[in-house]
Amino acid sequence: MTTRDDCVELDLADPLGRVRDRFALPAGTVYLAGNSLGPPTVHSTERLTDFASLQWGHHLVAGWRNDGWMDAPLQLGRQLALRLGASPGEVVVCDSTTVNIYKLLHAAVRMRPDRRVIVAADEDFPTDSYLVDSVAASAGLQVRRLAPAAMASADHGDVAVVVCSHVHFRTAEVHDMATITTAAHAGGALVLWDLSHSAGVVPVQLTALDVDLAVGCTYKYLNGGPGAPAYCFVAERHHESLSNPLTGWLGHAVPFGFEPTYRPAAGLQRLVTGTPSVPAYVALATALDATADADIEVLHRKAMALGELFVGEVRRRLGEQVRMVSPVDPTRRGGHVALAHACGYEIVQALIARGVIGDFRAPDVMRFAFSPSFQRYTDAFDAAYHLAEVIHGEEYRDPSFAVRQTVT
Amino acid sequence: MTTRDDCVELDLADPLGRVRDRFALPAGTVYLAGNSLGPPTVHSTERLTDFASLQWGHHLVAGWRNDGWMDAPLQLGRQLALRLGASPGEVVVCDSTTVNIYKLLHAAVRMRPDRRVIVAADEDFPTDSYLVDSVAASAGLQVRRLAPAAMASADHGDVAVVVCSHVHFRTAEVHDMATITTAAHAGGALVLWDLSHSAGVVPVQLTALDVDLAVGCTYKYLNGGPGAPAYCFVAERHHESLSNPLTGWLGHAVPFGFEPTYRPAAGLQRLVTGTPSVPAYVALATALDATADADIEVLHRKAMALGELFVGEVRRRLGEQVRMVSPVDPTRRGGHVALAHACGYEIVQALIARGVIGDFRAPDVMRFAFSPSFQRYTDAFDAAYHLAEVIHGEEYRDPSFAVRQTVT
Repeated sequence: MTTRDDCVELDLADPLGRVRDRFALPAGTVYLAGNSLGPPTVHSTERLTDFASLQWGHHLVAGWRNDGWMDAPLQLGRQLALRLGASPGEVVVCDSTTVNIYKLLHAAVRMRPDRRVIVAADEDFPTDSYLVDSVAASAGLQVRRLAPAAMASADHGDVAVVVCSHVHFRTAEVHDMATITTAAHAGGALVLWDLSHSAGVVPVQLTALDVDLAVGCTYKYLNGGPGAPAYCFVAERHHESLSNPLTGWLGHAVPFGFEPTYRPAAGLQRLVTGTPSVPAYVALATALDATADADIEVLHRKAMALGELFVGEVRRRLGEQVRMVSPVDPTRRGGHVALAHACGYEIVQALIARGVIGDFRAPDVMRFAFSPSFQRYTDAFDAAYHLAEVIHGEEYRDPSFAVRQTVT
Repeated sequence: MTTRDDCVELDLADPLGRVRDRFALPAGTVYLAGNSLGPPTVHSTERLTDFASLQWGHHLVAGWRNDGWMDAPLQLGRQLALRLGASPGEVVVCDSTTVNIYKLLHAAVRMRPDRRVIVAADEDFPTDSYLVDSVAASAGLQVRRLAPAAMASADHGDVAVVVCSHVHFRTAEVHDMATITTAAHAGGALVLWDLSHSAGVVPVQLTALDVDLAVGCTYKYLNGGPGAPAYCFVAERHHESLSNPLTGWLGHAVPFGFEPTYRPAAGLQRLVTGTPSVPAYVALATALDATADADIEVLHRKAMALGELFVGEVRRRLGEQVRMVSPVDPTRRGGHVALAHACGYEIVQALIARGVIGDFRAPDVMRFAFSPSFQRYTDAFDAAYHLAEVIHGEEYRDPSFAVRQTVT
C-alpha cells in the first residue's frame, strides 16, 4: 500500500523535479487535463512580453529576419524531430492538425496513384475520420475502416495509405506502430500516424520503424498553449515526391521571387502555407525549451508510474465502482487513464469543484492525464482520494453538477 | 507648397490622433511598412500577459469556455464584418489566407459544378495564383488569366468563380469590385475577392456589391501581428451550400459529440478547422479594439491625404528620378505608394539605415505604405525628404546597402 507520505518522497526523489519546477500551475490545483491543454511554463509570460514589446514592437517587420520568425516552422521542427526519433529536416511545425492531415493525405494519395483505398482506424479521433472521408471523396477512393488490431494482419495490396492514431484519444490504448507499419508496407501502402496523444509522453521512433508520414498537435503533452501550431513528419525518402495542395507563397522555392508559377521549396518548407503565427510559435518554443533536457524514456516511465499509482489507489478505494476503459497493462496505455461511470459527467464536475481537473468524453468516460513533465506523485494520489470521496459521498448528485457545459 | 510646420499642424488637427496614440512605435522611426506588418498597440503586451498568466495560467483548459477562446473565430469575425460592409454572421477568422483561399475556391467550384473555368487575375499575389492552379488541377478545370480591367468586360458564361485581389500587392491599384462582380454575376459566375491590401484602409462594401466570397489577412492595415489569423467572408445566401474540404472537428455541427461522420456546423463555424491559436487571436483582438471607433471613410481619406502629400513632395524634390508605379489618382490607389528606381533595393536599405522603413519588391519597386491608423503627416513629409536625400547624395551607392537580405 502506498501512503501519501510515500508520494511526497517519490516527488522529492523525482529525477524530473527540475523540469516540473519550470511549469506554472495555480496553487491547490491537481491538473489532470494536460492531454487536452498543457499548462504554461514559468517563462511563458516573459517570452510573450519579449515578443510583443521587443521583437514586434521594436524590430517590426524586420522581426521576420532578425528574430527568426520566418525560420520558426523548420527550427521548431528540428527540435521536435529529436523527440520523435526523426532526422532534423523531417519535421516542420505549421498550421493545425486538421490542415496537416489534409495535406499529407493528399500527398499520400498522389504518391500511390494506382491505389483505390484509404484504410482508416475505426473510432479514431473525429478529425482524422472526417478528413479521410473528405480526401477519399475528392480523389474518388474508397474508405476501409478497420480496428487498429486488424490493420496489422490485413492485406493492404490495394491501399494507398493506412491512417491511425498512435494513442487513442478516449481509451489511451497504444496501437502497435511497428506491426501496422510493417503490414502496410508489405502491401505497398504508406502509413500516416497521428501522434497527438503520444508526442511528449510515449516514445516514438519514426525513423527506426520506417514510418512514412505523421502529424500531431503540440498543445497536449508538449504544452505549446491553446491552439499551438501542429506539425508534419515526412520521411526524407518521400520529400522529392511530396506535393502540397495548399500552395502558399511561403512553400515556394523562392518566396520573394514572386514567380507566377508554383515551384515547391526543397524539403519540408514546401508544407508551409502562409506566414507563421508568431506569438503561437513563441509559446511553443518556450514549452519545448522547458523539456529539452527531459529524456522521453524517463518521461514515459514516470507517466506509467503515475498511472499505475492512480489505478492502484482507485481500485483499492473504489473496487469495481468505476470501470477501467484504458488497457490495464501500462505499456499499452498512453498518458491518460480512462474510467467509466454512469454519472461520469457529474463526477468530473464535482472533482473540478474540488480543484481536481480531469475531463469527460461522452457517453460515460472520465479522462485523467498524467503528464510527466509537470505532474507529481502526490497529484496522482490526491486525484484517487478525491475521486473516491466524490463517489462514496455521492457528492456528484448535487444538481449543479448536472448542468452541461462544453469542455474540451 | 507644404512645409514641415504645416504637417505638424495637420497632425495636431488629425481627427484620428486619438487612434494613433494607441499604437506603440519606436521613437525615431518612420514606419511605412504597415502594408506588410502593422505595429502593436500600447496594450498588446499587457493583453498577451493577461492571456498567458491569467487565462492560460489560471483557467487552464477552462479558458476554452471561460475566456471565450472557442468563440474567437466568430466573435472576431463579427467585429471584422462591421468594417467590410458585411452582416455579423458572414465573416469568420481562421487559419491563414492561403488555407482560406483554398477552402473557398473548393467551395465555389462545388457550387458551380457545371462550370469548367476559373478566372484569375494575371500578376496577382503569388499565393492566389498558385491556389487557383492547384484547385483547378485537382478539379479538372481550366484557368483563364485576365487583367482585372478585362474581367469587367469578359463573358463569364463558362466560369465557376472569378478570383481577384481588391488592391494589388505591388502597384496598390484598386480594382473595380462593383463592375467585376456585376460582370461575373452576369455570366453566372461567383466572385472571390482577396481583401488583404484593402481591409482597414480602403472601404469595402461586400453586401452592397453583392459579393459572394472574400478572404484576407489581418496583419497589414488591421495590425493583427505577425502571422495573425486570416478571415473568410461568405454571403449568407451561400451558407447552406458551403462545403469545406478541411473537415476538422471544430467545424462539425456537434464537435463534442465525437460523431463518426462529418456534419457541417450551421453558418461559418463550418469553416473552422482545428482549435484557434489563442495568443494570435488575442493580439488581433487588441488591434481591432484600438481601431473600433475609427470610421473607414475617415481612415481612407487620411490615407489618401498622406499618399498625396508624399507623392507631391517626391515630385517636387526628385522630379522624374523615380517612376510612379501606383496610379496617380489617389482614389484608384490603396494604402501604399509604389515607386520604381533601378537601384530601388539599395535605396530602401539606405532609408532603413536612416530609420525610414519601407520595403522592396523585385525587380525595382519601392513600397511606402501610409497606414492611417498610426501614421502622421510628418511621417509622409519626412519620408519624402529622406528619399530625396538618399538619392541626391547617392547614399545608396554605399556597398553595404547592396547586400541582399530577405525582407517581407
